Parts: sequence; structure tokens; C-alpha cells
Amino acid sequence: MFNISLTDIHRSYIDCLNRQDWPELGRDVNADVLHNGRAFELSGYRAMLARDFTDIPDLHFQIELSVSEVPQVAARLAFHCSPKAEFPGLDIGGRTISFAGNVFYEIQDSKIVSVWSIVDKDAIEEQLRR
Amino acid sequence: MFNISLTDIHRSYIDCLNRQDWPELGRDVNADVLHNGRAFELSGYRAMLARDFTDIPDLHFQIELSVSEVPQVAARLAFHCSPKAEFPGLDIGGRTISFAGNVFYEIQDSKIVSVWSIVDKDAIEEQLRR
Repeated sequence: MFNISLTDIHRSYIDCLNRQDWPELGRDVNADVLHNGRAFELSGYRAMLARDFTDIPDLHFQIELSVSEVPQVAARLAFHCSPKAEFPGLDIGGRTISFAGNVFYEIQDSKIVSVWSIVDKDAIEEQLRR
Repeated sequence: MFNISLTDIHRSYIDCLNRQDWPELGRDVNADVLHNGRAFELSGYRAMLARDFTDIPDLHFQIELSVSEVPQVAARLAFHCSPKAEFPGLDIGGRTISFAGNVFYEIQDSKIVSVWSIVDKDAIEEQLRR
């Protein structure tokens, strides 16, 4: 029951990102959200995500694996997209790259309160070397 | 019940790594284990891990977060160690670095059959810039 609920909240959050429905983000994300241990507040978190979509116009979050146990969800996200310039600190220049992100979310009172995210930079570098 | 069991298997696996108890690795890891989608077989997987400990003599795996839902365990691992030379593709040269790894494990018949691992290379690069 709880597990289904956490998974639902996470899916709703991912759908919200993919729609770029920024006014709705606060439905699934707490006002004092932490990202990689840093306090962002919802406004800062929203701004970071909106900037990601500006920098990567075809950005799309796809859930590849999902593991849920109260109060956490862990998800492996798959990306196939074309960052216009630098990402993450690498000169992509519009090339299409594929990579994964492994992310942990802590959910309290039906909202994401903390996110621990790592992007597979090694995989991107390998594609740039080809 | 199942969740406790998967968590136990994962903890046993991490303990085995920290003891560098390579003969015992097959108790928790399947003979045909996949790592980041590549077939390693147990012998190749063991060799990779043993090499990690040669390259990083003070390597220690610490579970920071753990999420379990059959048939998967996701864990955020914390590292504080001093790679002798390059890791991962960065010239560390004996400096002590702290970083995390976010990892998904699929467990079937009480053994790890697949591992999806991402190390936070960005965090390491940031420490090297200091």
C-alpha cells in the first residue's frame, strides 16, 4: 500500500518534469527540498530543472528501474538527448548522447524532501571519445 | 520477510568485499553476473574488485542508504579513500577523496545477478580542483 503510493508520487513527479509543468511541481516536491545535501528550496529546485530543459531542449526522463521501500524510492533514469552546449561540464555541442542517472528520493508526507542524484559522466565521456 | 532477506544478502556481499574475502564472493554473487549490462562472469567480477583494492589500498564500502523491494536492492555507498594513481580516469595520485556511488542490484535465488553502478565523478573532480 505504502510502496504503491511512493511509486505513484515518484511517477507523478517524473511526469510533471516531462510536461515541464513547473506550477505543479510543488504538489510532489517539498518546499524545503534538499538536492545532494544542499538546501535548494522549491523555487531553486524548480529553476535548476527549468534550466536543464533550456540547456537540453529534448530532455526526457525515463524510469528504467524503480525500487521502493518506505520512506524512499530509488530510480535508475535513462536519458537520450542533445545538450546544446556543456553537460555536465563536458562540451557536448548538440551531439545526441545516452546515459543513465541513479537517484534516491526520500518522501515524507507525500512529498519529495531529499534527492541524491548521480549522472553517469564516464559513459558520456566514452561517447564523446568515439 | 523477502525484503529483510535481500538486505541481508546485500550486507553480506558488502562485508565480503570489505574483508576482500574473494573465495566467498560466489556465495552472494551469481556465476553469470552482469555489471552495467556487460557479462563479467564471477571470475571477471572478482578480478575487477580485487584490482580496485590493489589500486585503492584503503578502499572501504559503507552503506549510506539502502532501499529494498523484491527482486532489487538499491544502495548509496560512501567512500573515503586514497587511490594510488588514476580513478576513475582521473589522476588522484594518493590524495584522499570522498565520493558516493549509487548502485542497483538485482537478486535472484539469493544471489546478485546484475549490478548497475554509477560513481560520482563530478564530486571527485570538484575535490581535485581545490
